[in-house]
Amino acid sequence: MSSPLLIDIKFENSRKFDRLRSTLGGREVIDINDGGGHPETFSGVHYALVWKPDGKLFTRLPDLRVLFSLGAGVDHIFQSDYLPDVPIVRFVDHTLTTRMSEWVCLQCLMHLRQQRNYDRQQRERLWQELPQPQASDITVGIMGLGELGRDAARKLKTLGFNVIGWSRSGRPVDGIEVFGAGRLDPFLSRTHMLVGLLPLTSETRGIFNRDVFSKLHRHEEIASPVFINAGRGGSQVEADIIACLEDGTLGSVSLDVFEQEPLAEDSPLWGFEQAILTPHAAAVSDIEALGHYVARQIARFEAGEALENVVDRSLGY
Amino acid sequence: MSSPLLIDIKFENSRKFDRLRSTLGGREVIDINDGGGHPETFSGVHYALVWKPDGKLFTRLPDLRVLFSLGAGVDHIFQSDYLPDVPIVRFVDHTLTTRMSEWVCLQCLMHLRQQRNYDRQQRERLWQELPQPQASDITVGIMGLGELGRDAARKLKTLGFNVIGWSRSGRPVDGIEVFGAGRLDPFLSRTHMLVGLLPLTSETRGIFNRDVFSKLHRHEEIASPVFINAGRGGSQVEADIIACLEDGTLGSVSLDVFEQEPLAEDSPLWGFEQAILTPHAAAVSDIEALGHYVARQIARFEAGEALENVVDRSLGY
Repeated sequence: MSSPLLIDIKFENSRKFDRLRSTLGGREVIDINDGGGHPETFSGVHYALVWKPDGKLFTRLPDLRVLFSLGAGVDHIFQSDYLPDVPIVRFVDHTLTTRMSEWVCLQCLMHLRQQRNYDRQQRERLWQELPQPQASDITVGIMGLGELGRDAARKLKTLGFNVIGWSRSGRPVDGIEVFGAGRLDPFLSRTHMLVGLLPLTSETRGIFNRDVFSKLHRHEEIASPVFINAGRGGSQVEADIIACLEDGTLGSVSLDVFEQEPLAEDSPLWGFEQAILTPHAAAVSDIEALGHYVARQIARFEAGEALENVVDRSLGY
Repeated sequence: MSSPLLIDIKFENSRKFDRLRSTLGGREVIDINDGGGHPETFSGVHYALVWKPDGKLFTRLPDLRVLFSLGAGVDHIFQSDYLPDVPIVRFVDHTLTTRMSEWVCLQCLMHLRQQRNYDRQQRERLWQELPQPQASDITVGIMGLGELGRDAARKLKTLGFNVIGWSRSGRPVDGIEVFGAGRLDPFLSRTHMLVGLLPLTSETRGIFNRDVFSKLHRHEEIASPVFINAGRGGSQVEADIIACLEDGTLGSVSLDVFEQEPLAEDSPLWGFEQAILTPHAAAVSDIEALGHYVARQIARFEAGEALENVVDRSLGY
């Protein structure tokens, strides 16, 4: 008798839940947010799939064996004080990666090609060509060189940008110069457009702050330096971003993630012409792909094979 | 004694002219638009570099041996009734190609990722995720598979888009399905985003019209079908574009070229939320690259070698 899968995701509609269930091959699925009368303790439930779960949820799952995260990030899980000692599996998926690279490439191109300036000129019905560097005049520095960072790097290079990278380990990546943890300053001094694709850990919390922004490289023909974040909002200091946009330390930003989500209606960030904002939509998990992924991992686990993409708790990702 | 190079380009400032001259290795350069007193006839001038020249200019150049075009297109030269029988060399340059691909990839990504909708939501301070297909759900159809079209195709494929192409010859291109002149309809029926990179000839004048737009393929989750033109404005029927945006035959457009340039201030095109306009700035010729290119072609010509990228007058490009 196969164990049910308990789900704690706040779906915006039941259609998504149905699509997820349809990929799980008949396994019983319990939606803890369906408003039904659920038991205090879910005995015999070996698997759970969560996104920003209630921290106390895990006290109700005494038989949990594997915990799945809806997204690539798992910081939302570590916020619980009741996290059981079971493997945590991140969702790593081709579509998640390619969608993220679409977003990153779009942002770099919009800043390179001065889209917000041309938008304004269009509103003003003004025909005026702006001075225009080409991609090869610009260096994009990516912080975080996991699956997402490496795919974005490859695509940005194809578009003509110079690309360099920074990672904690400094491990080499084909085709780009990688700076390790101790070489952040030389990395920043080369970077016109800083792209954050970092997980949120104790080391990365607040890492994108005035000190970092002030070390970036300026290109005189575009609104630069540029900060682009699609990792986690907790990595950025929004008060610094706002102040740096105001005093010119930053020329422009693209933000998909925020310290608090949804972003408060009164945040000044909404109002900057040179701030491009999206509502944590850079890379949504494809719900069918997620279901197939979870089903495959459960099959591996039950066959005694190793789970994939298991979180290293000492690193926090 | 080397022949001077006569230039008929309306530079916006003298700095560009100076940069061009500096690349020509001491050859005398005559700027016909410098306001100086020029002779009626330029005897002994073998070379001219022009952009939208005065049609009668050529009557003043009895000794012309090679004519260079500032851009990849040469329709502006064929408008003259006095065109001498000398080789016309198009400017084909790596930077011109890569800049064009930047622009084309930017436009496709903006339409894919619904940038104008997210722009509006940002102005309204609205946090709302939109349904989002991925690049591999979208087919980009490129009309015109020269240097520019092939480079754009390769980069769009790297970004994840499906790419198909159409060209007069139907000549195969590595990695994409190519439709020949007689197979326009099946090409259009597969295409969500139509990219025009065609030269302006008698065959392409007005080719982008309601009949073509109405055969494109719609994707329900984005403002589609999409028409993107960075070739020549004479290839498009702007009255049809406007009517098709109004009645939904087209979901959105990106236009860098127009029937009349600059675009008239009272054109309705400026005002469509789903029309992204740039002032013929998709791929500006890099002035130093242009100078080096002309110098190299003159050196080849004077050494008795073949000129490169010579226009085929029977085709008009």
